[in-house]
Amino acid sequence: MGNEAFLQTALSCLPTPRERRLPSRRCLRLTREEGEIRREEITPGPLKKGESLVFDFGDHQVGRLSLKLGFTGSHPDAPAWLRLQFAEQPSELFEKAEDYRGWISTGWIQQEQLHVDVLPCTLELPRRYAFRYVKLEVLDVSSKYSLTVEEAVCRALSSAEEGSLTPLNSGDPLLDRMDAVACRTLHNCMQRVFEDGPKRDRRLWLGDLRLQALASYESYKNPEMVKGCLYLFAALPRKDGLLSAAIFLEPEPEADDTYLPDYSMLFVPALLDYYRFSGDMETLRELWPTALRQLEIARSRLQNGVFPDCDRLGWCFIDWSLELNKQAALMGVYLYSLKAAQKIAELLGDGRLLELRNCWSAGAEAARTQFWEKDRACFVSGPERQVSWASQIWMILGGVLPDGEAAALLERMEEQQALGMVTPYLYHHYVQALLNLGQREKALQVLRSYWGGMVEAGADTFWELYNPENPGESPYGGAIVNSYCHAWSCGPAYFLRKYQLRQTPERKL
Amino acid sequence: MGNEAFLQTALSCLPTPRERRLPSRRCLRLTREEGEIRREEITPGPLKKGESLVFDFGDHQVGRLSLKLGFTGSHPDAPAWLRLQFAEQPSELFEKAEDYRGWISTGWIQQEQLHVDVLPCTLELPRRYAFRYVKLEVLDVSSKYSLTVEEAVCRALSSAEEGSLTPLNSGDPLLDRMDAVACRTLHNCMQRVFEDGPKRDRRLWLGDLRLQALASYESYKNPEMVKGCLYLFAALPRKDGLLSAAIFLEPEPEADDTYLPDYSMLFVPALLDYYRFSGDMETLRELWPTALRQLEIARSRLQNGVFPDCDRLGWCFIDWSLELNKQAALMGVYLYSLKAAQKIAELLGDGRLLELRNCWSAGAEAARTQFWEKDRACFVSGPERQVSWASQIWMILGGVLPDGEAAALLERMEEQQALGMVTPYLYHHYVQALLNLGQREKALQVLRSYWGGMVEAGADTFWELYNPENPGESPYGGAIVNSYCHAWSCGPAYFLRKYQLRQTPERKL
Repeated sequence: MGNEAFLQTALSCLPTPRERRLPSRRCLRLTREEGEIRREEITPGPLKKGESLVFDFGDHQVGRLSLKLGFTGSHPDAPAWLRLQFAEQPSELFEKAEDYRGWISTGWIQQEQLHVDVLPCTLELPRRYAFRYVKLEVLDVSSKYSLTVEEAVCRALSSAEEGSLTPLNSGDPLLDRMDAVACRTLHNCMQRVFEDGPKRDRRLWLGDLRLQALASYESYKNPEMVKGCLYLFAALPRKDGLLSAAIFLEPEPEADDTYLPDYSMLFVPALLDYYRFSGDMETLRELWPTALRQLEIARSRLQNGVFPDCDRLGWCFIDWSLELNKQAALMGVYLYSLKAAQKIAELLGDGRLLELRNCWSAGAEAARTQFWEKDRACFVSGPERQVSWASQIWMILGGVLPDGEAAALLERMEEQQALGMVTPYLYHHYVQALLNLGQREKALQVLRSYWGGMVEAGADTFWELYNPENPGESPYGGAIVNSYCHAWSCGPAYFLRKYQLRQTPERKL
Repeated sequence: MGNEAFLQTALSCLPTPRERRLPSRRCLRLTREEGEIRREEITPGPLKKGESLVFDFGDHQVGRLSLKLGFTGSHPDAPAWLRLQFAEQPSELFEKAEDYRGWISTGWIQQEQLHVDVLPCTLELPRRYAFRYVKLEVLDVSSKYSLTVEEAVCRALSSAEEGSLTPLNSGDPLLDRMDAVACRTLHNCMQRVFEDGPKRDRRLWLGDLRLQALASYESYKNPEMVKGCLYLFAALPRKDGLLSAAIFLEPEPEADDTYLPDYSMLFVPALLDYYRFSGDMETLRELWPTALRQLEIARSRLQNGVFPDCDRLGWCFIDWSLELNKQAALMGVYLYSLKAAQKIAELLGDGRLLELRNCWSAGAEAARTQFWEKDRACFVSGPERQVSWASQIWMILGGVLPDGEAAALLERMEEQQALGMVTPYLYHHYVQALLNLGQREKALQVLRSYWGGMVEAGADTFWELYNPENPGESPYGGAIVNSYCHAWSCGPAYFLRKYQLRQTPERKL
């Protein structure tokens, strides 16, 4: 059952989230007309059967809810039957679980029905939710009394230390806001582990962890928590040493049986990033065999120097897209991870450095030979020779092209018919590629238009998915299951802080 | 705020229900075709989205539910979302709360929706339910796992001492079964107080208490609990001394603001019954002023020697019927209670005995004058001069007619067009009237046909309401809110045991 010593190290590093009591800021009545949601502040009165109100906690919260309930009229002679809906975005309150027909489990929808037998009382809901808004609806009381809500309090949870965060103060309100939203996103995903999203899946995913760790180094600075998460993955490998894509913590730490080849390999750069921030050589040394093993397994899957088309490797992530052919992008992830492995081998004085260099050279050569299409002057992927942003981005991150050619390729892509990006996760890698190539202004432009678009759409935290063409869309068949606080989108906190990106109007002249 | 010393006495007498763990006896699949419910025993397997099963606990239970839950397949990657429905009768499982349109609060419907975040687990539901059947429905899991139920246990609650109950052993299977069902009904209503019904209203009602106490004297014999309940009413009178119809226990003991003139007066015979069983002269003496006060208040409401029509007194109970005119029956309750008061005055050597006798004589005379209709040779009630069973029964219990005339009247009623009886509560008083008149065989016949009818309809406990013409009917607009364990119907345990009623075939010849 895994590596017990690693597991103990992991558990000793993982924090216990701290609780803060936050009362609801105001009560709202929300109405929707022709898709537009109107908010009206109200003073809450006693509630009869069928009546409802919405508590607004002012910002995105993760935590438990306490309601101080009372009554007016006669002594309650029947239980109060309540429905509670928790929403990160107001739109979720206008969708019904019963109407949802997608493939995501409706068990994720944050709603409860409950009975209150004794009034007055303080109702302490045992589950944790992710929300800014809570709708309380009285499904029934009796005709002899009405329900009153004296107080609604969120017992907010996070392991982020608010005190360790310095404001960005870029001088640009949009950048400051983007940074604040990104930090809030990270803050609310920092629980016992870095969760992908506190609404859904509430779980530690390896590829997500890497981006959260980067943002955390620049903001809340908790390398111990990253260390705990890295050890957790390393403690629970598959028999052959392959790391799982995700870890469950309860009832006992256990690896998900989902294995994503890109996520497994990204353990290598995640380990390197951790060392670079922490200087923790002991961890680097201890987890290096685990990291290396991911690349050995990957290498054993190569055919004619490249990965076979991904259908034959099982699910590969790259981006949340079913149309995307991932063969070329996965090769880019491999090469990117090999570069990180070389740096670790150098740091540790590992004799396998040369072998790793040779692997990278052979891989880069095979990639250029098999995925580069001269006529279209870009990388293609799969039997249909699909052109996508994902392929170009990962090939560039993998270092397959010299910097000048890479920059020109990304510029050309804007004119190409190419399969686009769906998630902030892939957008993050796009911005990283631009910055690696010194394209600071273009990177800032992408940040402003993509993440800034979410800010303008009213985001308190950054979303799992965002399509600038249609901000309200859900690829899951209903916004009610979307995760609107998803830490793979906290990149702005990393980019704006690490690279000190600022608008430079002088240069634009 | 009431009488603090009485309240302390009350609370010191009330028992704490004891818990017994009872595993589910079997799993069922229930189907309904043309109104007929079919039960099929099944071996439960893993449950996917939309699947359900029914646990059968073998008999009516009151208590909490524990479910030991597990899973098959992958580690659960989404919460299990469950619906639980608790049913005293299988028919309740075929009705939906959403479809209920009656005036009873749907807060009483015993169903929960809940999420299970961690599997395996033991789910301990915090609320108490009244049920034999529990339907578990998987609203959703994820496609990666199925839910399993390893164990379903009822933590049954009652303050009845099963060991103090001797079997009836009448030699007649139907009578034995009626007695057992009646005792089970009482058993499950004996919680901290005598509740009217453990599903609904879970509350101590004064008129109900009197009948429960009678049955308990003959079966579980817990006079201390009756004493506690009597003191509870006496501790919390209205300012003028009138007793409430019902008492709430939580969060603090408090009188319901429902006042039923018949229920208040029935405190007097309830106190006398208690003394007769317990010999507790101290309680009789201490509660006598409270009892007497109910009759003083009643007497102050008389106009021309009788109560005005009940609309002017507020709600009066007598029977669960909106058509019933209650003026005459209420007068019968007054006279019946006055007779009990005379006995108490005799026991206590109270000088007001003569005054009580005079009150009764004047009342009986007024009742004969104003409610007896010569032509129809029966009692009538209200401005429409309505003929009902209720009026005859209570006039007879009030002693308005000599025994011979009373017996003839009841016999004549069977040929009359008279408003019938709706509840076991009024049927109880009918049987009592028959027995007071020595009509043992007729009394037994009523017991066999009315309560025996419920037994034949499959009752595990006796119901709040039973119409022999239509056993499935609900006066509340849906059986889902009916109470199928209602202690005002536990009369058979009292009658069969106290009067040793047995079929006597010899005499029938």
